[in-house]
Amino acid sequence: MQLLKVFSGTAGSAVKKIKEEEMEEFDGVRCRGEAVESFVKSLVAGAGASEESAAAVARALTDASMRAVDTHGVRLTPHYLRGLKAGRIKPNPTVRIERLSPAVVHVDADDGLGHLASYRGIEAGIEVARENGIAAVAIGRSTHHGATGVYTLTAARQGFAALGMTNADAIVAPHDGVKAFFGTNPITFAVPAESGNPLLLDMATSSIPLNRVLLRRDTGTDLPPEVAIDGKGEMTVDPFAAAALVPLGGANYGYKGAGLAVMVDMLCSAFTGMLHGARLPSFAGDDVTWPARLGHFFIIFDTGAFQPRQAFANRVAEFLADLRGQPARPGESVKAPGDPEWAALAERTANGLPIDAATWKTLGEFAQSYGCAVPDVIATTSAH
Amino acid sequence: MQLLKVFSGTAGSAVKKIKEEEMEEFDGVRCRGEAVESFVKSLVAGAGASEESAAAVARALTDASMRAVDTHGVRLTPHYLRGLKAGRIKPNPTVRIERLSPAVVHVDADDGLGHLASYRGIEAGIEVARENGIAAVAIGRSTHHGATGVYTLTAARQGFAALGMTNADAIVAPHDGVKAFFGTNPITFAVPAESGNPLLLDMATSSIPLNRVLLRRDTGTDLPPEVAIDGKGEMTVDPFAAAALVPLGGANYGYKGAGLAVMVDMLCSAFTGMLHGARLPSFAGDDVTWPARLGHFFIIFDTGAFQPRQAFANRVAEFLADLRGQPARPGESVKAPGDPEWAALAERTANGLPIDAATWKTLGEFAQSYGCAVPDVIATTSAH
Repeated sequence: MQLLKVFSGTAGSAVKKIKEEEMEEFDGVRCRGEAVESFVKSLVAGAGASEESAAAVARALTDASMRAVDTHGVRLTPHYLRGLKAGRIKPNPTVRIERLSPAVVHVDADDGLGHLASYRGIEAGIEVARENGIAAVAIGRSTHHGATGVYTLTAARQGFAALGMTNADAIVAPHDGVKAFFGTNPITFAVPAESGNPLLLDMATSSIPLNRVLLRRDTGTDLPPEVAIDGKGEMTVDPFAAAALVPLGGANYGYKGAGLAVMVDMLCSAFTGMLHGARLPSFAGDDVTWPARLGHFFIIFDTGAFQPRQAFANRVAEFLADLRGQPARPGESVKAPGDPEWAALAERTANGLPIDAATWKTLGEFAQSYGCAVPDVIATTSAH
Repeated sequence: MQLLKVFSGTAGSAVKKIKEEEMEEFDGVRCRGEAVESFVKSLVAGAGASEESAAAVARALTDASMRAVDTHGVRLTPHYLRGLKAGRIKPNPTVRIERLSPAVVHVDADDGLGHLASYRGIEAGIEVARENGIAAVAIGRSTHHGATGVYTLTAARQGFAALGMTNADAIVAPHDGVKAFFGTNPITFAVPAESGNPLLLDMATSSIPLNRVLLRRDTGTDLPPEVAIDGKGEMTVDPFAAAALVPLGGANYGYKGAGLAVMVDMLCSAFTGMLHGARLPSFAGDDVTWPARLGHFFIIFDTGAFQPRQAFANRVAEFLADLRGQPARPGESVKAPGDPEWAALAERTANGLPIDAATWKTLGEFAQSYGCAVPDVIATTSAH
């Protein structure tokens, strides 16, 4: 089973589950976010990437980690370092941006790091949306770009709403299927708020990420129900029997999550010129010499082109206040998309960015071989 | 509980469940689709609606019913007739289409039937997408428009891809919430295929529609797990205890369905100038004198602006063939979004459009009072 091979090692740190859908705590260290960003940049540059490529990776991974999106944060650094080393990722790409139509931008990532092409695409999309009210940004010949929400958030921080998605190699089965066909195909949507943090949705169209399966193998605990199938297509809670993830919605309603995965796969392949997920080489398999050739797709909205800016801001504020003020089950609160991440950002800004022990060790080894300085540890963390 | 009031009567026909997520069979009659469309048009015109308003409703409801989207098909006719009679829906609206930005269209539905504004919006969006590659269509001051997929499908039938959504009054609780806040806030996505039917996703962001709860009350059977909560926010399978639906994803992953509902609510309110779902008057409560003031949101894509037309068509064909060819669990097959509907369309084109007995009776009463001819019954149907 492919699941056995991928990402082995990165899920090996001791992890305490706080809540199924939320952040994890782990054994490791804490460093200042800015120091981590510099460190990651120096490592990626050490692996041969251009200055701007390395800066884009470091910015994206640190941004995700600071918001506790650890699965797509700093712990992915070794993956990119290996991809650069193996030649799968071009270290010094020529990113080409072409305006195909008044409101359509195509970005050719030139097999470089997806983070650089994605930031560039967002910036180009913002300019086009400023003129036209809306812009589509189709990115092709790209590679893994970390958390897709990083880029819609970048737009929101500049006052633009954004919808984003990416395809990926197959790890999620279609509804009623028996083997992987879709990537976890995330959808992200961000809307700026006049005061406070943006609204930020960033979700896989599967119920859980692959990493959760690997984690449960390490901890020897069952998976939640209806998140994975075995090799015969039957739902399984045994992490060792899991052969593929299933789409959001599980046994009864997985056709909905699968439908969303289809939308993502289409927009990121047929619209970008790339292949759909099932035809992509594996992101994390043994062979990292093939270019990944991923597609990403963004839509940028100039909110002021739709409604007067103040009216729009008032509506968003009203919506967020109404949602957050909803009565909740005992011990819970109703949150807007992104709220747990803003809480994490505040905490990590104050106390430092935690890096799990396994990642810390691996990064240290890379640092030694590239001659990079390791950031100061300001605290150690424990899952126990 | 609000759930007790809405749509009472329409779920009263005997229904045989074929499969949780699929179509239902019911006691009633079958008539030719074209005859049903003419009938619905004459009824809506009989209730005072303009020729073009009546034609739009009849076209939308018949299109949905022919594809077995019965919850949003002909059985909704009485709802619109009552809305027109009560003054909630303006019978002869002046739909205003304004281009706010090169690629952004606003449609003011003038409190008329949402079907008319939505068809008009799609047509305007296609023209704008032809120029710009992509177009946003924000529709405000609208009313219920039936199945949102009807309109994205209309675009796909003209060779354009489309994303669509609508908000609605509150019936779905936020994740961890205890009372309704979102509408079922559907998302639809359609992509034209060079040969054969388009790819068509059309899904509520809740697991089940409200109608399913009412049905289970009639049949005295339990709900599926994790689709509804009681008045305290606890999951319930008792259809009589159900106080609100929950978002797609259920107890563990409902925050994802809720996140999608947030996206829909935002795009259909802040971007259209309307209020979000929880502030809307009830769609189907006792008071039908208030204007609904719904918002709909569409994005139209000229696929030829992204990739050469033939390359795009090849990618779509390749994707659909790969997906449909996936190995499936015993007795199942892997389907593309829309496939069950195309099968239904073929069957209903051959054998006629089924109308449940309760709806047929109600429509007959309206026909009598408006002096409309009733279509020929070509068969009777039975759930048993």
